[in-house]
Amino acid sequence: MSYKIGLDISGGDFAPAEIIKGAILARKELAEEIVLIGREDEIRSQLASHNHSLQDFTIIDAPEKILMHEQPVTSVRRKKNSSIVVGAKLLKEKKLDAFVSCGNTGAVVGASTLCLGLIEGVERPGIALALPTRDGVSLIIDVGANIDCKPLHLFQYGIMAAVYYNLVLGKKDPSVGLLNIGEEATKGLGILKNLHEVFSSSPLNFIGNLEARDIFSGKCDCIVCDGFIGNIALKVAEGSAETIGRFLLDSLKEGISGKLGLLLVKNNLLRFKKKIDYAEYGGALLLGVDGVVIIGHGRSNSLAVKNAIRVATEELKIDLTAEIKRRINEICQDSGARQILTS
Amino acid sequence: MSYKIGLDISGGDFAPAEIIKGAILARKELAEEIVLIGREDEIRSQLASHNHSLQDFTIIDAPEKILMHEQPVTSVRRKKNSSIVVGAKLLKEKKLDAFVSCGNTGAVVGASTLCLGLIEGVERPGIALALPTRDGVSLIIDVGANIDCKPLHLFQYGIMAAVYYNLVLGKKDPSVGLLNIGEEATKGLGILKNLHEVFSSSPLNFIGNLEARDIFSGKCDCIVCDGFIGNIALKVAEGSAETIGRFLLDSLKEGISGKLGLLLVKNNLLRFKKKIDYAEYGGALLLGVDGVVIIGHGRSNSLAVKNAIRVATEELKIDLTAEIKRRINEICQDSGARQILTS
Repeated sequence: MSYKIGLDISGGDFAPAEIIKGAILARKELAEEIVLIGREDEIRSQLASHNHSLQDFTIIDAPEKILMHEQPVTSVRRKKNSSIVVGAKLLKEKKLDAFVSCGNTGAVVGASTLCLGLIEGVERPGIALALPTRDGVSLIIDVGANIDCKPLHLFQYGIMAAVYYNLVLGKKDPSVGLLNIGEEATKGLGILKNLHEVFSSSPLNFIGNLEARDIFSGKCDCIVCDGFIGNIALKVAEGSAETIGRFLLDSLKEGISGKLGLLLVKNNLLRFKKKIDYAEYGGALLLGVDGVVIIGHGRSNSLAVKNAIRVATEELKIDLTAEIKRRINEICQDSGARQILTS
Repeated sequence: MSYKIGLDISGGDFAPAEIIKGAILARKELAEEIVLIGREDEIRSQLASHNHSLQDFTIIDAPEKILMHEQPVTSVRRKKNSSIVVGAKLLKEKKLDAFVSCGNTGAVVGASTLCLGLIEGVERPGIALALPTRDGVSLIIDVGANIDCKPLHLFQYGIMAAVYYNLVLGKKDPSVGLLNIGEEATKGLGILKNLHEVFSSSPLNFIGNLEARDIFSGKCDCIVCDGFIGNIALKVAEGSAETIGRFLLDSLKEGISGKLGLLLVKNNLLRFKKKIDYAEYGGALLLGVDGVVIIGHGRSNSLAVKNAIRVATEELKIDLTAEIKRRINEICQDSGARQILTS
């Protein structure tokens, strides 16, 4: 059975061209049905420019666009015919199995929360992103949905990430850590100190505080943090990777032996680039909303779009929502953690 | 005239061995007088193991150690004979011109603030660190002194960083940016939105919000942020550089042409490593306290220690304290910014 994946063609720095190219790529490589949501004229002309048949896709006209700099709440409320709001509504009405957007993150979070609602027991949605480590993958949550996290939100992020890691990445009892400025329980913000205790006495495989240095070390499977901090962390990592890449090329080009060596290692460098390219890892998961929503990077190219669609299908293969509901209820309500963290 | 630089030999992950090696390096390369502060027996045996004459250094016995995980405020209050507290006191008594420590950051900040006091008008000290960009250097403040920054603290960090950048790095009207999760003024935490307006109407060369991706791009000279966020940003950058380095070596070693190429680019890779090695950039500046205090990285090796001492001498060559006092007064008090930000 193939899934119906809605794709917002108006969102992202390189929309609509790269989004449509990503849809065409996905159509070739994945067996899913792709529903293109956006301005119909743009979709038609883009597909025509690639000599691609219209019949491969379903097209839903959504003439309005929410731009990247627009205030999320206001724009979601005002632009009912935007690709983001239309996509979230179609998902709610079960006319889609999943919705993928590389548009304004705040608007995608807002529209999804508003249209789909939250999974029973969940307080706030969180954006979880898989990051490459040397030997595998770490999941970091939240990277930008919630920039003023309360302790209960952070605790629930840990639960949701562990469920995903277990079901989708196949690891029993994945480790959960709290991003802080020191490994010691006494360090960092007061809010994190209390949370530390609740995590410790929960059934989660909690390994304590995690220093930011260890985000990519593979030391922890599920990394929990506030959305403001997670967003900063992610963008610093991107920026430093870019800068390091430039430094590296500058250095390698120096001298004759450097230039010759560069020719010899060219393919190795391409493999290296692939390993650290975010586009290879697809989109981020909006966990906590009652439906499968994938948020692609604003700078997504066609490869990233295709991989975001792949991530959606992986999430659809398991019943994440039911399991999150069960675990949130079990860990958060029954144990009294909710009372402790909100009192 | 040579300066008297106090060096804490008990602080840092590789103390005392690497600290003493750094002191010997500095003694060879810089003309300053170095005062070694720590356990006298350790200092003597370390110097002996390097066959180094005791006469090159002044030794101050400070038998207590504040360990890396100790709670800063308590340890500073209790361990009066620790290298950190003794160093800060000697600086206050003008028996030193500057103090350099790679020890417990919170304890160095606490002891310095307590012993030296703050520059008139300054509300909180901040740790400023110079980061390499492709074409120069950016200064980021705060990277860990103050994990609960008020708007006024952030505003003053911008003023202090601009003074340093101007006097030490020789750039008139350096640009000042506010680290946030989006470039648009409407994005991010509420506290940053108000601050944005005060910065905009100040005489500083304020360029607005800065995305974390741009920390290393060279887009902004002085990057202002909360100490919690700055610390996370810094450690993410370190962690991603480490991971990228490992990915790179793994990739380069693959195949025969890769191995051959690796031999040819070896020297280029060493130059590249030097360019991104924090040890080359020395220590961070504790701005706002009434004296020259340099905080080295906890993982400092001898090269980093030597460079931290070099950074201290650079700061001593100019009268930073007087200029910070003048500018804080001019920009912060006279303009009414203090009233606006604290009301």
